[in-house]
Amino acid sequence: MNLRDLSISEDGRTLWLDMTSGRRLQIPALQVRDLCDCGACRHANGQRLIDLAALPQDQRIAAVEVGVDHCSAIVTLLPESHRVELTFDRLAQLLSAPEAQLAGRVPEARLWDASLPESRFPKARYADIAGDPAALANWLVGIRDYGFALLEECGSTTGTVLSAVELFGFVRETNYGRLFDVVAKPDPNNLAYTGLGLGLHTDNPYRDPVPGMQFLHCLEASGQGGESLLVDGFRVAQDLRSDNPEVFEILANTSVPFRFTDSTADLRSNRPLIEIDGQGGLVGVRYNNRSRADLQLSPQQLTAFYQAYSVFGRLLHDPTYIISFKLNAGSLFVVDNRRVLHGRGAFSGGQRRLQGCYADWDALTSYVNLHQ
Amino acid sequence: MNLRDLSISEDGRTLWLDMTSGRRLQIPALQVRDLCDCGACRHANGQRLIDLAALPQDQRIAAVEVGVDHCSAIVTLLPESHRVELTFDRLAQLLSAPEAQLAGRVPEARLWDASLPESRFPKARYADIAGDPAALANWLVGIRDYGFALLEECGSTTGTVLSAVELFGFVRETNYGRLFDVVAKPDPNNLAYTGLGLGLHTDNPYRDPVPGMQFLHCLEASGQGGESLLVDGFRVAQDLRSDNPEVFEILANTSVPFRFTDSTADLRSNRPLIEIDGQGGLVGVRYNNRSRADLQLSPQQLTAFYQAYSVFGRLLHDPTYIISFKLNAGSLFVVDNRRVLHGRGAFSGGQRRLQGCYADWDALTSYVNLHQ
Repeated sequence: MNLRDLSISEDGRTLWLDMTSGRRLQIPALQVRDLCDCGACRHANGQRLIDLAALPQDQRIAAVEVGVDHCSAIVTLLPESHRVELTFDRLAQLLSAPEAQLAGRVPEARLWDASLPESRFPKARYADIAGDPAALANWLVGIRDYGFALLEECGSTTGTVLSAVELFGFVRETNYGRLFDVVAKPDPNNLAYTGLGLGLHTDNPYRDPVPGMQFLHCLEASGQGGESLLVDGFRVAQDLRSDNPEVFEILANTSVPFRFTDSTADLRSNRPLIEIDGQGGLVGVRYNNRSRADLQLSPQQLTAFYQAYSVFGRLLHDPTYIISFKLNAGSLFVVDNRRVLHGRGAFSGGQRRLQGCYADWDALTSYVNLHQ
Repeated sequence: MNLRDLSISEDGRTLWLDMTSGRRLQIPALQVRDLCDCGACRHANGQRLIDLAALPQDQRIAAVEVGVDHCSAIVTLLPESHRVELTFDRLAQLLSAPEAQLAGRVPEARLWDASLPESRFPKARYADIAGDPAALANWLVGIRDYGFALLEECGSTTGTVLSAVELFGFVRETNYGRLFDVVAKPDPNNLAYTGLGLGLHTDNPYRDPVPGMQFLHCLEASGQGGESLLVDGFRVAQDLRSDNPEVFEILANTSVPFRFTDSTADLRSNRPLIEIDGQGGLVGVRYNNRSRADLQLSPQQLTAFYQAYSVFGRLLHDPTYIISFKLNAGSLFVVDNRRVLHGRGAFSGGQRRLQGCYADWDALTSYVNLHQ
């Protein structure tokens, strides 16, 4: 960034930087003060020491000069007579992408539908990512952007799914344990533990917060059936919002009770199936027919909700959105549980056995930030 | 619930129940279908087997009769000729509290300010809750409703803070470990590890999801200073919303970048300081001046945001909101990290040492649901 001139507005509230490109940058005095990283304002570890709210709010610029190395502006601010050094590099970075600020939770989301070819599924081999931070980061970017990924040649050792998470992050322990086995078993407390097909769903909508990611490792595949099905809930929600905004609004504004109960847990939540934030941005999709509890709404609300639910549920199961693949023994898949629904076909024969665990998002994005 | 009469609307879309009280209940046919808990519709474990979205949407009631024990209505629905038994007990429960459906995340929140006397702080002794599920549930209700609680006579064994969480739930592991020590230490990667005072803040706003609760156990208290400070962020946000709605709107609609970085982590988020859901309900408060990163906004947005930030920051530090207490060796406190800000006074003398960990909310509310 090449500077042509520096100046101060008459009231001292604004610093003007005129660049050789002809661009004129405007920096409020309070921002100049907030950007100070002198030893009194910022610890050597990078954390701020001064709370902006505790400073005089009538910051004004008394003087500005170019630093001796011609790479910074030195600004003196009243009423504290505090001197702030702003490097042009930092200003350039700061001013480069103001629109990023307004981006939603998943600015990188690459929405997909059934037309996504298997060759483009985010995929890696365990050995390749276990020893190579850049390869691992690249695989994690797939999870972040597509909401799912496959990992192959993981072997059939129990607990491998935990090791996969621990390559970059931390397991979320719940009442199901750090690790849970998904096998057909007698007296199942969850339909996951039967040979039945499982409709498309997100996991544990009755939890707060819901699990950010689910990892599922196939130790033994079934003889027949048991295909894995995935749907991009954000893609479906976005299409619904465009094509049927009234239905979208009903789903985003009706809290739905979910519940899971057994002898050791009674988990309940009450949230919309499509969750938006205060700015209307898509935050999450919840859909789990198994654990939906009884609705308590007026007859009029119920009729409208059931209709909206049906539209959404049918859309989520529309083949134009579903990708499917057979998870082989030794492979695992990951889903973004706030975005992507998963399900399975009914199965028989063989000793289908999966192991699963949950993990949080922050460690994944941190790893990507560090290693990419 | 005593029934006087049962009837069906002419179009078969509605079941009418006339009660001896004179109340008339209206139940849409689709709801009747959705409520069916026969073996084909619901597994013995309580989970639903039928996805409503997959059923014919033109459900209509062909017939209704009172069950042989006079405690239920037996409804036959077309087009499937499916028979649904609705017990009056279940209907009474279902229809008792339709407004609960619309309640927010913390319907039980008991907002407080500095006038909350120490005698009303939610409090228990470790030995009393460790052996008594009802006493434990009662203490957990305090955390849920007030957003904080104290636990006394915990001893000074390291790791006790983990045991406290494990009484009901699970530790959230992060890059700080399952357990972290808060002591003054050389070359701190976080100001928490110095003798400096810490302004009021919520923990880890750069994490996704943010830690639901923080537990802090005092192993050794400081000689002078080091008081614990707490503020009910929901109370302050609610007052701000009433008294200064423009400022509330700016804070709820401006994403603020937060960042923590050291050699092993680079955690970033970009969320509003006051987080509301799609219905305008208060979801969380984030305030952490230390880890706030540089804002990327237009000069006009910056000026408005800085002013709003200052109003909110000063309000959060207003003594009318702050409760303070000295955490003694052997005591611990818990905060709802999505609602309550905590801080500490500067300290000197003694070997102040705390151990902390994070935990998620779902296990807490589950425990309360089971044991209260």
